Amino acid sequence: EQQEQVQLAGILGVHDCNCWDIEPQIVAVIGGDGSILRTCRAMGKQQRPMLGINLGRLGFLADLTPAEFMQSLGEIASRRYRIVDHLMFECRLLRDGHEQLQSLGLNEVSIQAGASLRLIDIELLVDRVPVTTYRCDGLIVSTPIGSTAHSLAAGGPILKQNLQAFVVTPISPHTLSNRPLVDSADSIFEMRVPEVNEGVTLVIDGQIREPLRPGDIVEIRRAEVACQLVRLEGWSYYSTLHRKLGWGSNPVSFDSR
Amino acid sequence: EQQEQVQLAGILGVHDCNCWDIEPQIVAVIGGDGSILRTCRAMGKQQRPMLGINLGRLGFLADLTPAEFMQSLGEIASRRYRIVDHLMFECRLLRDGHEQLQSLGLNEVSIQAGASLRLIDIELLVDRVPVTTYRCDGLIVSTPIGSTAHSLAAGGPILKQNLQAFVVTPISPHTLSNRPLVDSADSIFEMRVPEVNEGVTLVIDGQIREPLRPGDIVEIRRAEVACQLVRLEGWSYYSTLHRKLGWGSNPVSFDSR
Amino acid sequence: EQQEQVQLAGILGVHDCNCWDIEPQIVAVIGGDGSILRTCRAMGKQQRPMLGINLGRLGFLADLTPAEFMQSLGEIASRRYRIVDHLMFECRLLRDGHEQLQSLGLNEVSIQAGASLRLIDIELLVDRVPVTTYRCDGLIVSTPIGSTAHSLAAGGPILKQNLQAFVVTPISPHTLSNRPLVDSADSIFEMRVPEVNEGVTLVIDGQIREPLRPGDIVEIRRAEVACQLVRLEGWSYYSTLHRKLGWGSNPVSFDSR
Amino acid sequence: EQQEQVQLAGILGVHDCNCWDIEPQIVAVIGGDGSILRTCRAMGKQQRPMLGINLGRLGFLADLTPAEFMQSLGEIASRRYRIVDHLMFECRLLRDGHEQLQSLGLNEVSIQAGASLRLIDIELLVDRVPVTTYRCDGLIVSTPIGSTAHSLAAGGPILKQNLQAFVVTPISPHTLSNRPLVDSADSIFEMRVPEVNEGVTLVIDGQIREPLRPGDIVEIRRAEVACQLVRLEGWSYYSTLHRKLGWGSNPVSFDSR
Repeated sequence: EQQEQVQLAGILGVHDCNCWDIEPQIVAVIGGDGSILRTCRAMGKQQRPMLGINLGRLGFLADLTPAEFMQSLGEIASRRYRIVDHLMFECRLLRDGHEQLQSLGLNEVSIQAGASLRLIDIELLVDRVPVTTYRCDGLIVSTPIGSTAHSLAAGGPILKQNLQAFVVTPISPHTLSNRPLVDSADSIFEMRVPEVNEGVTLVIDGQIREPLRPGDIVEIRRAEVACQLVRLEGWSYYSTLHRKLGWGSNPVSFDSR
Repeated sequence: EQQEQVQLAGILGVHDCNCWDIEPQIVAVIGGDGSILRTCRAMGKQQRPMLGINLGRLGFLADLTPAEFMQSLGEIASRRYRIVDHLMFECRLLRDGHEQLQSLGLNEVSIQAGASLRLIDIELLVDRVPVTTYRCDGLIVSTPIGSTAHSLAAGGPILKQNLQAFVVTPISPHTLSNRPLVDSADSIFEMRVPEVNEGVTLVIDGQIREPLRPGDIVEIRRAEVACQLVRLEGWSYYSTLHRKLGWGSNPVSFDSR
Repeated sequence: EQQEQVQLAGILGVHDCNCWDIEPQIVAVIGGDGSILRTCRAMGKQQRPMLGINLGRLGFLADLTPAEFMQSLGEIASRRYRIVDHLMFECRLLRDGHEQLQSLGLNEVSIQAGASLRLIDIELLVDRVPVTTYRCDGLIVSTPIGSTAHSLAAGGPILKQNLQAFVVTPISPHTLSNRPLVDSADSIFEMRVPEVNEGVTLVIDGQIREPLRPGDIVEIRRAEVACQLVRLEGWSYYSTLHRKLGWGSNPVSFDSR
Repeated sequence: EQQEQVQLAGILGVHDCNCWDIEPQIVAVIGGDGSILRTCRAMGKQQRPMLGINLGRLGFLADLTPAEFMQSLGEIASRRYRIVDHLMFECRLLRDGHEQLQSLGLNEVSIQAGASLRLIDIELLVDRVPVTTYRCDGLIVSTPIGSTAHSLAAGGPILKQNLQAFVVTPISPHTLSNRPLVDSADSIFEMRVPEVNEGVTLVIDGQIREPLRPGDIVEIRRAEVACQLVRLEGWSYYSTLHRKLGWGSNPVSFDSR
């Protein structure tokens, strides 16, 4: 078997990475899950396979320590890895019939009360069909990758990372039967705020923020590109999940049944 | 446009409907959601499009009143309807390497404490990969159709009816981070009970029950056939959901924000 | 039986009601639950029994229609009512060892992310004992009266209105085992924010708002006074609860068990 | 200061401990939380302060290792401990106007579907006032001590151990607005099953089981006696809670806000 060499093609800051003059086969992202997120969004329509090297505690996406990365250079050189595609979204903010903002993202889009500190009424439509109007502190539309972040904290389910679906999770919904909804990634999700207090904000991947005005429409759909993650042999989503969520331990002590 | 006639091909009890000597274009199911469920399972590998006529309060599946059905005969005759496919599962109980039981189903498979009245330890594997061991009162693997039944009551999300996915929802899990999991319908789900008290029971669609023994393996995968529902013009899943879950009302009265 | 007369002692706006020059036996509050809340806070240490007359849809606190009120004037005149005491809190904001703000309240105290739109780390102490540090979108300390408002939407339990307890409910907690806590109203609750982003806000009864700074301490304890509500014969908390939360209906349609 | 001696008064099995011929000042319970539970129930109306020595992993109640116990003998001899009272309940099963069963308990009373494997309709009354009819897999009435056991797994809040209250937590309630209820320990709680399938079972502290019949009434009220636990210096409920529920860790990894 021919032993290939791993060659460092270049070092880029996050803000340079949508203007490659090289064509890397793998982008090694050094940092944490957040760095993967930023890199992914920054690459825009020119996604490259990313390999996450974690400088802090291990994440869902960046799950190699620097030492493990160094040890796996041989594997990488001989292509003993899989590239796994992950759903990305395209989010558009429509105001008075114009596109006010457009962004790709990997985690989630949310509308949050922000400085208003009040209940928000958010209409949800899927494929132009009205679903319901949430009275809530906020509403999250999340990818599978994002399902273990803000959506999970708000009470949402865990979506297997390769599922082609979005989950809609309300934050503190006042109608108690408003449970998280999972629908196909081929659908178009719209959040509308006909009347909205000052301070209510659109948040994309926790990083892009845009104040909303009455009548604004936020549209989320599958992006044309997918996020690509390099997964070495032996990797499994469920073992990562098990470890990250502490499923090995049993926090309730005392059940006499 | 040629006006076709609706013709009554025959009347069958639920237990006859897997041995058609006729080939009906539509099976009108009279009863409720439960009747649709039974008919669907009884048709086995010879699924026919079902139209549900509800004698009680309207359901998710049987959502026509008798009067609405009579009014829509013209529509039906002229084929102004859609046939919507819904995920069904095949469940197998494996004991000592043999197949102890095999069944199709539409709603969910669950393992429940039953007469044991004790916590159960249930190992979940997806595509042969161990996910976690739940300590719980029970574990549910549900289709999208089933996601608004037992799984919802146990804290699961709502899956759009045409999603190709299963949701795994624990009942009273003792590890508090054990949230519902949504994974692709192309995966194979296994529930294993290496040690199990007497009384623990496998339940399929709430109707088939089989006591479990230590070492039993319950395997759930996508069925080769799909359940077919006739949907008239104007039908929408989300408006049904909205109505059934009372999303128009606001049960929390008093928030001064 | 001596027939007493109901006499109108005066008409006051909410902002006048802590400087009575009369001593009303009952304060009839016209508006809704929010009006009761404002009146209660405005009365401060001179609480009087309130009777809520609801101009909109019926509330938990203001549960008489104008017509019902007119019909019950005889009952009121002959004192055929109970006065029920309800827990109020005193909230103090301590900054650099000084009391920055002090307020009575009836519903809840919360710290919310507000304009920061970020996760907040909030330390909770009860009777000076550290409980945990929540990573969350916010944290609510609620009275029984407030337990059916913001706390309920965030996942909290319902506390019977006359219980002498507070419930601490996190909003979107990132540690999934962070469940709502119920502790005695005789305890002192402290929320501390050693490091806090700009925009994080203290909110009292949804009406008083104060931006927080790093190191701020929010202290909540039982107020010396109690809110007094007039309850006519036949009133019961649980029947109100049943009606307000729609417990008569059954929103999940389709369980074949 | 006079140095007292610790003297072993005797060794008793659980079933002997309601017929003391000695009067121990402290009952050292060797085992785990379950052993405390059994001992407490067995002592009946002659409660003695218990000190839990844990042979397995530490519990909420039995939280001394054998080594810690040996080290604390001096403390115990010189009475450097507190005795903390905990709410116990008395449960009565009424059938056809007769008392079919009566038991003290420390954790919880529940009605569970058991072998019926079906939804149960359970009416709840508090102080003879109807609250609601739950359609559910079961219903739990729990003490503060029991609130971290089955009730927590079913979605209930955590009640501080010395609170004088019960929490009512439904298991998989089909009405999604059926949230856990916390009410005063001075109230009388009744669960009624006018129609009930065979197999539905009353369970007390996970240990006493009694099949229910249609028309049965289960009544729960505060016991006349309280469970007494010996707490050494430095003990705090919240630090135990923090440790047992893993609140120091943060299981959600990846929130980019």
